[in-house]
Amino acid sequence: MSQTKTWTAETIAVGSELLLGGRLDTNSLFIADRLAACGVELRYKTTVGDDLSDMVSALKTALRRVRVVILTGGLGPTIDDLTREAVAQATGHRLSRRKAALDAMTARLAEWGRTPTTSQFRQAMIPARAEILSNPVGTAPGFSLVWKGSFLAALPGVPREMEPMVRDGVLPQLQAWMRTQKRISATPMIRRVLHTSGVPESVVDQALAGLVPKGCTIQLGIYASPMEVMVSLTGPAGAEGGATIEQLLKEARTRLGDIVYGEEDETMESVVGRLLNEQKLTLAVAESCTGGLIGHRLTQVPGSSAYVDRVAVTYSNRAKVEMLGVPSGVIERHGAVSADVAAAMARGIRERSGAAVGVSVTGIAGPGGATESKPVGLVYVGLDGGPGEGLTKEFRFHGGDRAVIKQRSSQAALDLLRRWLIRKGC
Amino acid sequence: MSQTKTWTAETIAVGSELLLGGRLDTNSLFIADRLAACGVELRYKTTVGDDLSDMVSALKTALRRVRVVILTGGLGPTIDDLTREAVAQATGHRLSRRKAALDAMTARLAEWGRTPTTSQFRQAMIPARAEILSNPVGTAPGFSLVWKGSFLAALPGVPREMEPMVRDGVLPQLQAWMRTQKRISATPMIRRVLHTSGVPESVVDQALAGLVPKGCTIQLGIYASPMEVMVSLTGPAGAEGGATIEQLLKEARTRLGDIVYGEEDETMESVVGRLLNEQKLTLAVAESCTGGLIGHRLTQVPGSSAYVDRVAVTYSNRAKVEMLGVPSGVIERHGAVSADVAAAMARGIRERSGAAVGVSVTGIAGPGGATESKPVGLVYVGLDGGPGEGLTKEFRFHGGDRAVIKQRSSQAALDLLRRWLIRKGC
Repeated sequence: MSQTKTWTAETIAVGSELLLGGRLDTNSLFIADRLAACGVELRYKTTVGDDLSDMVSALKTALRRVRVVILTGGLGPTIDDLTREAVAQATGHRLSRRKAALDAMTARLAEWGRTPTTSQFRQAMIPARAEILSNPVGTAPGFSLVWKGSFLAALPGVPREMEPMVRDGVLPQLQAWMRTQKRISATPMIRRVLHTSGVPESVVDQALAGLVPKGCTIQLGIYASPMEVMVSLTGPAGAEGGATIEQLLKEARTRLGDIVYGEEDETMESVVGRLLNEQKLTLAVAESCTGGLIGHRLTQVPGSSAYVDRVAVTYSNRAKVEMLGVPSGVIERHGAVSADVAAAMARGIRERSGAAVGVSVTGIAGPGGATESKPVGLVYVGLDGGPGEGLTKEFRFHGGDRAVIKQRSSQAALDLLRRWLIRKGC
Repeated sequence: MSQTKTWTAETIAVGSELLLGGRLDTNSLFIADRLAACGVELRYKTTVGDDLSDMVSALKTALRRVRVVILTGGLGPTIDDLTREAVAQATGHRLSRRKAALDAMTARLAEWGRTPTTSQFRQAMIPARAEILSNPVGTAPGFSLVWKGSFLAALPGVPREMEPMVRDGVLPQLQAWMRTQKRISATPMIRRVLHTSGVPESVVDQALAGLVPKGCTIQLGIYASPMEVMVSLTGPAGAEGGATIEQLLKEARTRLGDIVYGEEDETMESVVGRLLNEQKLTLAVAESCTGGLIGHRLTQVPGSSAYVDRVAVTYSNRAKVEMLGVPSGVIERHGAVSADVAAAMARGIRERSGAAVGVSVTGIAGPGGATESKPVGLVYVGLDGGPGEGLTKEFRFHGGDRAVIKQRSSQAALDLLRRWLIRKGC
């Protein structure tokens, strides 16, 4: 049993391919948020390969140091899928074939016009005394059990299978069990997030100095990434040392002002999409150095076909002239990377498309293409909303590679649009 | 001291924000590859927050179960940066301010026209007997030490600081130390990778059945992701149970044939770019459901401006007519998502741009927009390379959300182009 007096958790992700990284981990954010809402704090994240003794070692370590262990992965039908055996070894519970698990799997496969293969029978082998967690999407069931004062759940690693199983299976079971463990108090924690754009981390840091009063345990987190600085407030749902999260959040919004572009799960493209929808405006985009990234981001949002009319990626100068009507004299005089060309691109795409607003980017993403007066990272964004409604802005992005400069350029263009839409909507 | 008889490693990433995921982990792939080349196998990856007792616990666990521990993060100047203290506590080595570390930091800051702040002095506090690892990019030095038969290195978490410090500092030290540990043999391991596209995991699995002879310890890994099935062969550099990695790799290439689109670090867009460059051809793209993703991917490759002429993202039907000259009658008769429209889009963008080849995509990315006869996931890709050189292909992608369908559609279009370029180049 763990020695801690608060509710602590560890996730164990199983899979040799995960040891190598190179994949975006979204499971742990999901699990951490859901556990926090129940008053359980994620303290460790472990990744281990498909090796039985390593898995048993990781499980034993976790069961010793936290009260809640969530395993993901290793529940498939192949001999590499060893999570069931590892839990059996770590806890001393034998595996047995469960009729309920087998029936559910057979029924699921029948829907797909298939019957279980011999190897799929393995998926119905569940440690004794574990409760089966049904999988509403795939064939592999999960399971949960309580062992020496810790709660353990094993789930598939695929997010769209794991997420409903956490929500509908793990959390109700976990909360019911926590209520029986009276010596440990659970304080439900909440986490609120603000997303800011256009300023460095140090500016956000200064603006929020002294936000959390002394003695208050609410935690302020400030995290910089190429496209944004994210602010998080984590703490108990109620009042805490003279402040609540909602009060601090309100104060943070006031201090940060319009550099806050969104909250919680919002993205710059979803915010821009909402504003365009609200104002019933359509958008056309002319991209150069971003190469299609702005269009890609805008169209990640379901329903974006309602406001995205078209995007022209004019990588060559000829394309800028032909697709957007940028005068070739302007390119010759000012260069393709200039405020004048950005303005002509935004105007050109708006006029040719008939969209309400045109947005443009031109810049040097590197590593090649720089000159003495125009270094890598020099980027111009433009906006045209009709006569008298033209804007351009210059950026000099330092210290990033081609991918980062593309990201930051796309963010700068979408943020220019966001600010224009907010002013227009007022 | 660890009980293992081979060289095993664990990475510990420090930082509360890392517990929440949502970030691409590239450090572990880099570290795993470099360690494998020295004969050290990465067995565990642990992530822990900025909490001293959790860090000490994670360190003690790692020092017990592996021989090589690589810590990343927590070396900055703030009071949240606790890696130095955690190593001191876990190993019993006191921290002391090192003149060499302080001098290097002062010199680096002087280059930037700055002097060390009080908090930056903390960065020169290094555990006694540890060797300092100089940081060629930032201000925080790393350090390494040997403790009860295990090698431990602490490095910054920022990849562009960490990577040269591993290459030039950690690996030479580690290898020198390993040579003194004669009871454990180190077998340098190599890992070779093939990338395939266009077929499901089960097809790759069947094609490679029996590839690795019985008794051979070379490991075959097959990993599916939305855009590809990746094949890896991992094992000792020399002959092993009657086969070498290079022999198996050659056999795998033969068995898989042209579904292999690339090897090692190659991406579909880098391969397509190389083929276009070799054949001195230019490309224009007409995208609908992918929304700019194809252009974005193509332009991630440095130097892509040599062959990418332009991209038209024609989200609306009107844009298809105006930007590409798709006859509105064809859209009315067959619908915007049809082989005929895909063909007309590819032809239109090629003719209007004057590029050598045009590629197109039109499809239903969902969640909206489906009809009874045209479900979400129905996608047509097209290619036009001039008179008599037109192709279209239909895809029905199942079981993915909007983002996945966009990814798979972009991959299908680029793969069609790749195959066409290979035939043309022969």
